[in-house]
Amino acid sequence: MNFDKELENKVKETESIIKEYLPKEDGWAKTVMEAMNYSVNVGGKRLRPVLMAETYRLFGGTDKVIEPFMAAIEMIHTYSLVHDDLPAMDNDEYRRGKKTTWVVYGDAMAILAGDGLLNYAFETALKSFEMSDSDTGKKAKALSILAKKAGIYGMIGGQTADIEAENLGSQATQEHLLFIHEHKTAALIQAAMMVGAVLAGADETQICLVEKAAYEIGVAFQIQDDILDVTSNLETLGKPVGSDAKNQKTTYVTLKGIEDASQEQRELSDHAIELLESLAEEGYQNEFLIELIRSLITRIK
Amino acid sequence: MNFDKELENKVKETESIIKEYLPKEDGWAKTVMEAMNYSVNVGGKRLRPVLMAETYRLFGGTDKVIEPFMAAIEMIHTYSLVHDDLPAMDNDEYRRGKKTTWVVYGDAMAILAGDGLLNYAFETALKSFEMSDSDTGKKAKALSILAKKAGIYGMIGGQTADIEAENLGSQATQEHLLFIHEHKTAALIQAAMMVGAVLAGADETQICLVEKAAYEIGVAFQIQDDILDVTSNLETLGKPVGSDAKNQKTTYVTLKGIEDASQEQRELSDHAIELLESLAEEGYQNEFLIELIRSLITRIK
Repeated sequence: MNFDKELENKVKETESIIKEYLPKEDGWAKTVMEAMNYSVNVGGKRLRPVLMAETYRLFGGTDKVIEPFMAAIEMIHTYSLVHDDLPAMDNDEYRRGKKTTWVVYGDAMAILAGDGLLNYAFETALKSFEMSDSDTGKKAKALSILAKKAGIYGMIGGQTADIEAENLGSQATQEHLLFIHEHKTAALIQAAMMVGAVLAGADETQICLVEKAAYEIGVAFQIQDDILDVTSNLETLGKPVGSDAKNQKTTYVTLKGIEDASQEQRELSDHAIELLESLAEEGYQNEFLIELIRSLITRIK
Repeated sequence: MNFDKELENKVKETESIIKEYLPKEDGWAKTVMEAMNYSVNVGGKRLRPVLMAETYRLFGGTDKVIEPFMAAIEMIHTYSLVHDDLPAMDNDEYRRGKKTTWVVYGDAMAILAGDGLLNYAFETALKSFEMSDSDTGKKAKALSILAKKAGIYGMIGGQTADIEAENLGSQATQEHLLFIHEHKTAALIQAAMMVGAVLAGADETQICLVEKAAYEIGVAFQIQDDILDVTSNLETLGKPVGSDAKNQKTTYVTLKGIEDASQEQRELSDHAIELLESLAEEGYQNEFLIELIRSLITRIK
């Protein structure tokens, strides 16, 4: 099977796993559930749960215990977008060509839907404890990684630095920018791949290698985002382009130019692939995962 | 020792436990940590962690394992207030006589501080897994209860129904209002007391009794809030009074009048006390907890 077809199948599988864990829209609190499900169903690449499942497979994982974690990380990613899009934050009206949650449900309900998704992510991941197919220690460790990488020492930390960089405009430094990329984007990619590794029973050295590779993949992914903001168009990207320039935002591209940014991004992703391929010596291989990482820096949306 | 003095000591102890678990204000994401800590340090009765610790004591618990959960529930309570106060929600500028988080740090940072507190609550409770003094199954169960009661089937569900009731104004029904009280307020009181019971090793029947009693305490507590909104004044309450009437909000008081509301609230709290006192037959007693519950319906702020 070719890569694109295989990816399409895996994304479909992932979508149906996520759907299984979304709340039924019912009762007096129905509206927040609708707003949560609308936000998740707006779509996306489902990159984080797919990376999680493929890292799990890399280390020989075959259980269903990975599934609640796959749904959980997509809920966390989605809540961060719902809150990011709010008028008080980025004030974005469209995402992936569809109206954002606050435009459809109002600001108050969008705030609650984001809170609901974050909280429900933990409720969902905790369902793994009711499943018999893996030990409790691994589940607790996976949960702790997910929580840490999503929080103030991870994604929320990155968002905080991002808001402050916006106030600085073109005064933001490269160090500041790298902190944002590391935390706002790479942290959740790390969570995805590390949770996969932990649940499959990877040892500390392997988890450490995965953390490093995921860091590089995450930063490379974010640099590609900055590049696309300059080179793509509304139709391909599904969201306004040139918004970084409009907001006088410092990005890898404004700091280094497109060529240097592209090269750095290629080096990062090449090195991440090298790290993961080194696991083959220990008998761990996943060709699809390698191709997926390669595809991230050549993507056009 | 008299009750007031004992309560004061217990609140102080609780404050120092919470403080121990708050993040250090450091690094590129310092501002969100400052906003989180500001929000928690605005103060409050610390009712939820105190109820948790006292229910834990009721069932014979003595370990430190309760402490991360005490901090976690106060973080969850605080985040809900931070988001509730936002201009997009209740638009409140003062709470307990102090400026609300969004007034001091801006809307965007207040949204992130709320997200940060919710996420950090789970990170904090997960630290219990690194502690040796209780078994993993109990901790996982306590975490699941906390997550469920805080989420769309608990507190967030209640907030959703509350926003919709505001749009209905005086059209909201008693059934709708009871759902709000049960979820917006009682759910977190239930989480507090149930987590205490679970971690102390209470059995299913006892946990069920605690859930019922906490429900009654929570609804009684909320009715008292509605009464105080009519009868208190700004100085005593530390927040604007009469706001329910101003917002044409349906409350227990507008539906039933102060006398009937007071009576219902007294009946609820009497019954909760009866339930908890029935545990004395099995050898479980905590006089302070009973006095604390009694004090909630006579409080003036």
